[in-house]
Amino acid sequence: MTIKDIAKLCGVSVSTVSRVLNDRPDVSPAVREQVLAAVRESNYVPNNSARDLVRTSSDAIGLVVRGVSNPFYSDIIKVIGREIDAAGYTMVMQQIGANEDEIARGAIMEREKKLRGIIFLGGRWDYSPEELGPITVPFVCCSFTNSFGSLDRRSYSSVTIEDAQAAETAVGELLKLGHRRIACLVAETDDRSISELRWHGYVKALLEAGIEPDEALVARAHSFNMEDAYAAAAGLARSGADFTAMFIIADAMAVAAIKALADLGREVPRDCSVIAIDGLTFSEYIRPTLTTLCQPTSRMGEESVKILLDVIEGRSEPRHVVLAPELRAGASIAPPPG
Amino acid sequence: MTIKDIAKLCGVSVSTVSRVLNDRPDVSPAVREQVLAAVRESNYVPNNSARDLVRTSSDAIGLVVRGVSNPFYSDIIKVIGREIDAAGYTMVMQQIGANEDEIARGAIMEREKKLRGIIFLGGRWDYSPEELGPITVPFVCCSFTNSFGSLDRRSYSSVTIEDAQAAETAVGELLKLGHRRIACLVAETDDRSISELRWHGYVKALLEAGIEPDEALVARAHSFNMEDAYAAAAGLARSGADFTAMFIIADAMAVAAIKALADLGREVPRDCSVIAIDGLTFSEYIRPTLTTLCQPTSRMGEESVKILLDVIEGRSEPRHVVLAPELRAGASIAPPPG
Repeated sequence: MTIKDIAKLCGVSVSTVSRVLNDRPDVSPAVREQVLAAVRESNYVPNNSARDLVRTSSDAIGLVVRGVSNPFYSDIIKVIGREIDAAGYTMVMQQIGANEDEIARGAIMEREKKLRGIIFLGGRWDYSPEELGPITVPFVCCSFTNSFGSLDRRSYSSVTIEDAQAAETAVGELLKLGHRRIACLVAETDDRSISELRWHGYVKALLEAGIEPDEALVARAHSFNMEDAYAAAAGLARSGADFTAMFIIADAMAVAAIKALADLGREVPRDCSVIAIDGLTFSEYIRPTLTTLCQPTSRMGEESVKILLDVIEGRSEPRHVVLAPELRAGASIAPPPG
Repeated sequence: MTIKDIAKLCGVSVSTVSRVLNDRPDVSPAVREQVLAAVRESNYVPNNSARDLVRTSSDAIGLVVRGVSNPFYSDIIKVIGREIDAAGYTMVMQQIGANEDEIARGAIMEREKKLRGIIFLGGRWDYSPEELGPITVPFVCCSFTNSFGSLDRRSYSSVTIEDAQAAETAVGELLKLGHRRIACLVAETDDRSISELRWHGYVKALLEAGIEPDEALVARAHSFNMEDAYAAAAGLARSGADFTAMFIIADAMAVAAIKALADLGREVPRDCSVIAIDGLTFSEYIRPTLTTLCQPTSRMGEESVKILLDVIEGRSEPRHVVLAPELRAGASIAPPPG
């Protein structure tokens, strides 16, 4: 029974039925009563029937996006939306700030929107089982996992790249060109998140090349914002620290850093090479084109939905997928000057 | 009655109730029957009660985003999501390609998701009343309106900037600096959309300055993609056309065009000034910083939700809001060379 059937049944237009359902004032009391009676007596909304109520609470999948200004997320959201829709579910999205609590938000959504499952896009890397208690539906961590936490791996799913490894690969590209004084721009080095993980990869690559990491070459932006990245890179350049290359943990931060270096008279890559991780479209159009390790955003979105639906529909247990990033050669790295 | 109450009532854990509701196999038949009976007898999901079913079909507001690769939309989506949530509704988003039919998609969503209203973010500017027939709930056109169509203004709402006027203002900035040979990069000049509107503003500004528009100075990208904008700008530069400045209808296209000009040996603004419309964060971090007219994205999102809820809740009739863009001075315009 659709809204059209109700209209036919009552001999009124579809928009009249709609006005009644939306409680608009411009309908006569008699027609209103007739439409409401037809709705009451019919099975207008199959999902709300008692049978369906019991079998499944709804067809809603929650998407909680933390750190909404991350341009890297836009592509993944698009793919996740498409895949959820194709599977016949409804995506209910909430975007929260980088400092908000995605678990609390997810738990409220689970109840209010009767979610079948949740995809967290961005979140903390150090959950404990107690913290996850309020989430009672299956969930997938997309672009992060529980590296710093204590969850039982069988109790959740995740889709990530190997972040420390990606950072090692990026720094390896700089080492291959002959760089030894390699600076690094991170959000934090101890935030138990992607920033710390990528920083570990940077340190490991240096140590394996026999280079002692130098604290004077580490710039902390305290966020992933372009504005903060610009300030941190400018601060490092002004500090007089001696470096010929920079590894930067995210594309957007690298774009801001290249601007900061240029504004202080250091041209990339002539005076300083820059390499990053993410692979945004935008970074192909800056000058110089950014050399970066691309995250496979489409596959990350697809895998996240696939895993979640497999678990929701009982086809598989939670699982963890690690995808490989791919180097996109740009023009922002070169051998060291001199 | 919450999932917790059901669990207490049955003397089982919350996650057991959840497993039953999600039809998972790992629950004993006796417990499953007990939980289902409790759910059946209780008012577990208030929204699905007969009373609410009649009063309002759901609390869902649809957001149909057309042209998903437009980075300008990310900020607006964030604001719209926040405002819908704050008002106690649920945002259901669908993103579609630039060539897909937002009306058909919105109509399907309206039925499937029982929408109370729809915000179209991006869409066609030339709807006829017949085409809008399938949409029976209130809707708001955000960032576009019916300039080329035949809708009764009282039948829909819209939130836009005055696009032709914004283009005139942008070209005016170039004229003030002394430019006379001003090129223009558009998607199309006759697509009955934002591209045509902004092109009209460009033409008007030239004519009012006594300059005859020159077809040889108009580059068409046939889309809003950066890749196509790069190719169109490169084509214009290679054509040998004589120009000292470019008006570009969108920031992302301008970033690609500046790259194309540079790759062909023309520096911005030394050899060619560039001005655009949109105001993306990213364009503050390219070199040179883009001079652009910023759309008031937060206000556009806020106004769209406010109008839609006013109409849904019967507080007002549909209405149209036109906001003013604001010039963000960058370093991409200068007096003509020589």
